[in-house]
Amino acid sequence: MVHFVLNKQDVEDLVVGAAILGTGGGGDPYIGKLMVLQELERGRKIEVVSIDEIDDEAFIIPVAAMGTPVVLMEKIPSGKEALFSLNLLEKYFNRKVDFISPIEAGGVNSTIPLVVAAERGLLVIDADGMGRAFPELQMVTFHIYGIKATPMALSDERGNAIILDAIDNFWAERIARTVTVRFGGSAWIAIYPTYGKPYKDAAVKGSISFAIEIGRTLRDAKITGKNPIDALLDVTKGYALFKGKIIDVQRFNIGGFARGEAVIEGLDEYKDSKITIKFQNENLVAIKDGEIIASVPDLITVLDSETSKPITTERLRYGLRVIVIGIPCNEKWRNPRGLEVVGPKYFGYDIDYVPIEMRVKKIGGVA
Amino acid sequence: MVHFVLNKQDVEDLVVGAAILGTGGGGDPYIGKLMVLQELERGRKIEVVSIDEIDDEAFIIPVAAMGTPVVLMEKIPSGKEALFSLNLLEKYFNRKVDFISPIEAGGVNSTIPLVVAAERGLLVIDADGMGRAFPELQMVTFHIYGIKATPMALSDERGNAIILDAIDNFWAERIARTVTVRFGGSAWIAIYPTYGKPYKDAAVKGSISFAIEIGRTLRDAKITGKNPIDALLDVTKGYALFKGKIIDVQRFNIGGFARGEAVIEGLDEYKDSKITIKFQNENLVAIKDGEIIASVPDLITVLDSETSKPITTERLRYGLRVIVIGIPCNEKWRNPRGLEVVGPKYFGYDIDYVPIEMRVKKIGGVA
Repeated sequence: MVHFVLNKQDVEDLVVGAAILGTGGGGDPYIGKLMVLQELERGRKIEVVSIDEIDDEAFIIPVAAMGTPVVLMEKIPSGKEALFSLNLLEKYFNRKVDFISPIEAGGVNSTIPLVVAAERGLLVIDADGMGRAFPELQMVTFHIYGIKATPMALSDERGNAIILDAIDNFWAERIARTVTVRFGGSAWIAIYPTYGKPYKDAAVKGSISFAIEIGRTLRDAKITGKNPIDALLDVTKGYALFKGKIIDVQRFNIGGFARGEAVIEGLDEYKDSKITIKFQNENLVAIKDGEIIASVPDLITVLDSETSKPITTERLRYGLRVIVIGIPCNEKWRNPRGLEVVGPKYFGYDIDYVPIEMRVKKIGGVA
Repeated sequence: MVHFVLNKQDVEDLVVGAAILGTGGGGDPYIGKLMVLQELERGRKIEVVSIDEIDDEAFIIPVAAMGTPVVLMEKIPSGKEALFSLNLLEKYFNRKVDFISPIEAGGVNSTIPLVVAAERGLLVIDADGMGRAFPELQMVTFHIYGIKATPMALSDERGNAIILDAIDNFWAERIARTVTVRFGGSAWIAIYPTYGKPYKDAAVKGSISFAIEIGRTLRDAKITGKNPIDALLDVTKGYALFKGKIIDVQRFNIGGFARGEAVIEGLDEYKDSKITIKFQNENLVAIKDGEIIASVPDLITVLDSETSKPITTERLRYGLRVIVIGIPCNEKWRNPRGLEVVGPKYFGYDIDYVPIEMRVKKIGGVA
């Protein structure tokens, strides 16, 4: 049963791990880190509880930022924005929240719940709704376990606010996305309000501590002189997929998403090979010499070859030397209902999902 | 002090008058009429009270449809849609509404408050926020008297619902319009929630009875053989501006509005002249041979020459023989604050507002 108080080192480790689980999406972890550290410097405490400690009747609200990460980077948040949406949703329910939850384990959205918890003196649950990051609101295990995304609250930094009650989670995504674009590209949301029992069935357990563990592992590797990528693959049970130099990046903002692709030319043992990574906020599919080598819902993360730091999709640029790794997703995604909302077909790729362990075996010796 | 129970004849007269005050916008009055008549056939009573009967503390909510009128024509409403939004807003305020109000005196929006009142057994106030119809949410006398459009409720016919709280009425318009487009082109709104005192200062008094009086006047003219256009100009203190045949209509759906223009070639005393009417849901400006002869906020209404029935902008078509009339707007619009939100400059025409009485005098003998 995890129950710990976050210290500054945890925060440093957390954002590194969250950036890796963020698979390129979820915004710049640096901004999220600043926000949390500022809370700690103000003397506020951030306490994380294990999912096992949650009462069945507890009232839980996940909080997050929504929108195009690049917009979020241009408008540094004050930390009050997501709290505003939380307060709004509480007022609508006429009930105080018992626990805050992350909705995803990636990028800035791994830190926003911590900031809100610090501001309000609330506990954060060591779990989330993805075990990674995904671009759309219905792409959460909460959804596949039948929890409704709405009533949800959305607000912008000006103070415009909305309570949305949609007929289903797909309509919630559609309407909230439109509002987010109208807000200028980013919104602060309180979403998937639920109770202890359904939450415990649906959530991905231990996401915060897992992200911290990943960050700590990389830090330790640097100290001990161990190969950081090997250490990372070890702790995540992941696979090295490619090593090379980015030779082309294309991106477009469509419908409130950062879509695009990066082409990487192989180096060393991957010489004479090319890999293309397609993304929609997050990395979705990795295609090596015409063959899919990893796809959603498994995680695809691009790391800087020199620093071993993960690179968000908005920071991919020509000339960067990178390592691409693949990490098996949470088991909750690997059933028909999960794959229906986050499998490659949902994103428009006419391929069946094959777990990364099988793909690696099939193409032989990638790792 | 007006206080009357609406009968079927009143409803017939009302929709004719409302179509004239609707200046081409506000949707097909026929659909609105069917909705109200259905309520009366169900044995429901629709009572209209004078604005003078309203207590200063009374809680008042205007209800309406929002969006492109042509979409509203394609999706016949059940009558429950606007009620749904009203109930939502009441729940948000945790207070039952005392009176329903129309927000505009035009087209289908003159009847929707009646339907809601019938369904809920509420009284409707004989007033509105325009004395005509306008395309945007902040274009109401409520706005120029400092009443906030939000919290407002929006819903669609599927059951998707939103409570919006915007920082000002322009943001309310922007966000609500975006949501309306996402809903498929039309939304049902409960908006400008307010209390008796501010409402009485801000509202345009007597709109429902005025619309009925216009309809009745036209009906009487037919019976007595009087010229219906003369009778209409008499009761509205309006001016005949043009008579001719439509030779061109252009329209486009942009940003949730039906925009466009109609060109009319003169007949009889207007032979060798042309008039262009520009609209955004409603008719905005009438330009005769290059010269403005009427503009918002004054009313410009196009009537069928043969039947003397008003024609909505979506029904304008090549070959129709029409009469164009102009009606002075409510005095509340004719001050700088009013003209700022509904004058020709707001709509992108670089001309000063000149009251129609002055324009007619200036160009001489149009009436």
